[in-house]
Amino acid sequence: MASPAIQELTDSLPDGTVIVDADVAAAYSRDRTDVLAAGAPLAVVSARSTDDVARAMAWAHAHDVPVVTRGAGTGLSGGATATPGCLVLSLAKMNRILSIEPDDFVARVEAGVINGDLDRAAKPHGLMYAPDPSSMDISTIGGNIATNAGGLRCVKYGVTRNSVRSLTVVLADGRVLRTGHDTVKGVSGLDMVGLFCGSEGTLGVITEATVALVPRPAGDPVTLLAPFPTADAALGAVSAAMRLGADPELMEFMDRRTLQSIDDWKGTDFASSGGMVLSQVTGPDAAARAELIAEAFRAGGADDVAVSANPAEGEQLIAVRRLAYPAKERLGHALTEDVCVPRSRLAHMMRFIDRLAAEKDLTICTVAHAGDGNLHPVFIYDGATPADVPGVVWESAGEIFREALRVGGTLTGEHGVGTLKRRFLAEELGDVGVDVQRAIKAALDPKGLLNPSKALA
Amino acid sequence: MASPAIQELTDSLPDGTVIVDADVAAAYSRDRTDVLAAGAPLAVVSARSTDDVARAMAWAHAHDVPVVTRGAGTGLSGGATATPGCLVLSLAKMNRILSIEPDDFVARVEAGVINGDLDRAAKPHGLMYAPDPSSMDISTIGGNIATNAGGLRCVKYGVTRNSVRSLTVVLADGRVLRTGHDTVKGVSGLDMVGLFCGSEGTLGVITEATVALVPRPAGDPVTLLAPFPTADAALGAVSAAMRLGADPELMEFMDRRTLQSIDDWKGTDFASSGGMVLSQVTGPDAAARAELIAEAFRAGGADDVAVSANPAEGEQLIAVRRLAYPAKERLGHALTEDVCVPRSRLAHMMRFIDRLAAEKDLTICTVAHAGDGNLHPVFIYDGATPADVPGVVWESAGEIFREALRVGGTLTGEHGVGTLKRRFLAEELGDVGVDVQRAIKAALDPKGLLNPSKALA
Repeated sequence: MASPAIQELTDSLPDGTVIVDADVAAAYSRDRTDVLAAGAPLAVVSARSTDDVARAMAWAHAHDVPVVTRGAGTGLSGGATATPGCLVLSLAKMNRILSIEPDDFVARVEAGVINGDLDRAAKPHGLMYAPDPSSMDISTIGGNIATNAGGLRCVKYGVTRNSVRSLTVVLADGRVLRTGHDTVKGVSGLDMVGLFCGSEGTLGVITEATVALVPRPAGDPVTLLAPFPTADAALGAVSAAMRLGADPELMEFMDRRTLQSIDDWKGTDFASSGGMVLSQVTGPDAAARAELIAEAFRAGGADDVAVSANPAEGEQLIAVRRLAYPAKERLGHALTEDVCVPRSRLAHMMRFIDRLAAEKDLTICTVAHAGDGNLHPVFIYDGATPADVPGVVWESAGEIFREALRVGGTLTGEHGVGTLKRRFLAEELGDVGVDVQRAIKAALDPKGLLNPSKALA
Repeated sequence: MASPAIQELTDSLPDGTVIVDADVAAAYSRDRTDVLAAGAPLAVVSARSTDDVARAMAWAHAHDVPVVTRGAGTGLSGGATATPGCLVLSLAKMNRILSIEPDDFVARVEAGVINGDLDRAAKPHGLMYAPDPSSMDISTIGGNIATNAGGLRCVKYGVTRNSVRSLTVVLADGRVLRTGHDTVKGVSGLDMVGLFCGSEGTLGVITEATVALVPRPAGDPVTLLAPFPTADAALGAVSAAMRLGADPELMEFMDRRTLQSIDDWKGTDFASSGGMVLSQVTGPDAAARAELIAEAFRAGGADDVAVSANPAEGEQLIAVRRLAYPAKERLGHALTEDVCVPRSRLAHMMRFIDRLAAEKDLTICTVAHAGDGNLHPVFIYDGATPADVPGVVWESAGEIFREALRVGGTLTGEHGVGTLKRRFLAEELGDVGVDVQRAIKAALDPKGLLNPSKALA
């Protein structure tokens, strides 16, 4: 790329928007997928408005420059990994909460607003932003939408898509699209909002969103933590509890290997069980609903179900789950996988993973958003750098993907396809699925400039 | 169309699948939008399998014949009105419930399954199918998905889209696409399920679906009916009640003119109020949640809130709402409109509608799914046939659409664009929106054969 083109870009945008220094640009070239190498970007645009993005896209379109969009770069699938010679478009500075409408339960935000910041801003209105990916304190709403992020509370409130009403999207040629409905219901025209949610930067650049808020549950939540003799028993009890209609907002499973990693760190004795389940209920009748769940856990083989008597006790129980990731990371480098299966197949998947770990002599610690059937097997490995992933780890991850597909599941429940799962995607979508999705991509990005070599792009 | 082509179609399908008799075919040429005239179809295919649909579509594609798909024909926007010379594809006989998976909270159904039949089949498993359009006893799941139908329980469970996991779709050229995720979460690939939901037969033919079920609420529901001095007071109280997080599954408003029509029929005295609100809560703590709502209603000016003490009393209260449509239909022909606005603008819309009715000397009875901001102004008019809609009614409906758009709402909350609202759609979508949606349409149906002259097609 000749520098006159870069000069044209710089001239078309406010001062300080375009970063060409290679070292600074490199800091924008990767997300948290540290197993991947990034290409060197041509330049970075640190946009402060939809207009900045529109100008940058119009420029990229005119010059046939590929564009990799990023929020806070917290992705775990390489969805925001820079490709060589691309323009990186950072939306991190578009971080204004434009309005909160307490009577309509909506907020208008720029794409770079941090998820947790919106939730905190909603709180004085008695409202909350339901989607809660584990990265909520560091990831952006725009990134959450682009990956249709999940989270722990999905079991009650659904995925990010369910909280998105309308979007402002800059198209591949720089035109600005306003699409969707700010209202609860709306069926005029095609559901473009759903199409952009989870499209991983391959169809357009999401710059603003109107998102739904929900009433913040009144009263204190009640939290439960239950050790089970086996993973089978734990996951069976999860199924039984889900059928009660108690509407929990947490239903998390930790396997014995995860508990062992916590024990090794904290000197606890959790791994004497075969697996633990953490649950939480909220609302005016939380205590009664928690008791329903506790009974299901006891009937499923948990002799000693801890039920919080107050929020402080609840926090202590949740702390166990919060330890799960840092405890694993103490063991070595960690590759976090993310498959989702029908809930009834969770126990099967745990047996499959345990057998795989034994056969291949691997350390795999698994947590699951069990109410949703979403498993995170975390592979622990040694190496000079995180990028030194042993072949047996990749192969074993592949075996888990294929088994998840075989039992009616999916490659990725909430992290996205990005770079890491590209080679498996066609297997899940099938030939017709690939054709149709490529046709959609071609309709919206005929030059193929948006996030090339990610997902299906 | 020469008869050899029809013969080819007939030969390619099982006996009795193709209907060419003009009188019989005419019975498949319209939905419940009785204000519209239908064209004469070339033939009707009454499909019994996805394979039948695939063969019919391949034939239509080869012969450039437009295709109008229909379920039970209960639509109110002319989405299934036959165009002259089209092939009508009826899925009404694809009415098998293929499986119910009680542990995974899903059912697999053919598109022609009646909504209420699925709900009844789920009941023995302690589950329910949440989407409940008023037509639930006569409309099909496939039609509900094709229009992304709403309903009364949306206020708690969301629209049809929220209950659809995966689809089998026959594409415009006859290929069969399986798309979506049977799991709760799934982010591999683009959200094609959302794209087909609400696409009104313009992108493909939905033949099967995996839909989500939810635990049927335990215990008796508690129902509330509250008369308010004015519509403003009623709608203000709805907003206040929604902010409590009591999670009602009904929050319905009836205006004074609607109540008058019931009084005229049944000799009641509802119209001495300025509007009534019906609500219902379910679950183990329904009584406590109902009391929260009752207090909000009282604080909003309702002196006499009826709260059901048992299910029979609840049914009596709901019966008032059920009378609303038949009571209006006694007054003359009825054109039911369907706009959705931010909930905070409901009171404004009611004042707008009342003023319009007074200025134009029209009878407009309005009910609203008030928790969702979804209004149904019903225009009553005289005429030899329902198709004799006075010009002033069309003009006034147009004024309501434009006012809804002006305050941040949409043309249609749950009925769809179909034929009736086509001329307003571009106004809502904007130029870029129209371009993008047309590009998607062209990508999936390049010959433009699927439901021509409906929605954006």
